[in-house]
Amino acid sequence: MTYPIYSDEYFMNIALQEATKAYEKNEIPIGAIIVLRNKIIAKAYNQTESLQDPTAHAEILSITSANQFLGSKYLKDATIYVTVEPCLMCNGAIFWSKISRLVYGANEQKVGFSKFQEAAKKNNLNICHPKLSITKNILEKEAAELMSKFFKSKR
Amino acid sequence: MTYPIYSDEYFMNIALQEATKAYEKNEIPIGAIIVLRNKIIAKAYNQTESLQDPTAHAEILSITSANQFLGSKYLKDATIYVTVEPCLMCNGAIFWSKISRLVYGANEQKVGFSKFQEAAKKNNLNICHPKLSITKNILEKEAAELMSKFFKSKR
Repeated sequence: MTYPIYSDEYFMNIALQEATKAYEKNEIPIGAIIVLRNKIIAKAYNQTESLQDPTAHAEILSITSANQFLGSKYLKDATIYVTVEPCLMCNGAIFWSKISRLVYGANEQKVGFSKFQEAAKKNNLNICHPKLSITKNILEKEAAELMSKFFKSKR
Repeated sequence: MTYPIYSDEYFMNIALQEATKAYEKNEIPIGAIIVLRNKIIAKAYNQTESLQDPTAHAEILSITSANQFLGSKYLKDATIYVTVEPCLMCNGAIFWSKISRLVYGANEQKVGFSKFQEAAKKNNLNICHPKLSITKNILEKEAAELMSKFFKSKR
């Protein structure tokens, strides 16, 4: 499948290629890329098993990688594409990095940040950076199918 | 000051030594250590500036270090001592690592996880691992003073 160049689907499709690499290495198949002015500055996939590190989620690895690339602690004006809704740890990393935009694919009912954000907002709190823009459910079906396929293979 | 061996104050004092290293390197002075059966298996201090990485909080660095030491993704039965209340990112890392006990020093009103946990609980959610035990305000004054001294020096 091809998508219009520089569209959200175009970039998410590249994040999905990262997720597929995770799948092939027997890792929970989640991928992330970071894009700054239409240039991909970091790509990563979940490596919690191969690194034996529970913090080695695709988002954390891609943020650290983008920081190294730019030589900067902040990723203002950047967009992170993640195939699955980030967890609270990764949402926190996105917060600290000052990434401007989060685009994700499949919802994550159990550990995704959204339900905690709803609870926070009811109490006038915000777990995201106030300037963060969020777009969800881009290539959701593809991302969710890869996750289902992985977990089915584990049963 | 000396503290009874293997007491929470004893270990927190070592985390404070890590925080002091951060202070001396012009980093926000937060330190963390991870203890398993009275043995310190990881020490770290905040290095967001020197690594130019917003994820390089003391907790994340110490968790990754402890994983490497044990060759294990999980840190069950371990205690993490942090001089300042963890943020949501670090609370998430503690969640994923399955650390059994969190001990922290000073409260962090702005980005600490506690107020978000209160909001979550009102909605029958839990941002911490259900088995996590939490002890707070161990050597709180010392940790808070180091933070104040740092931020005063920045004005």
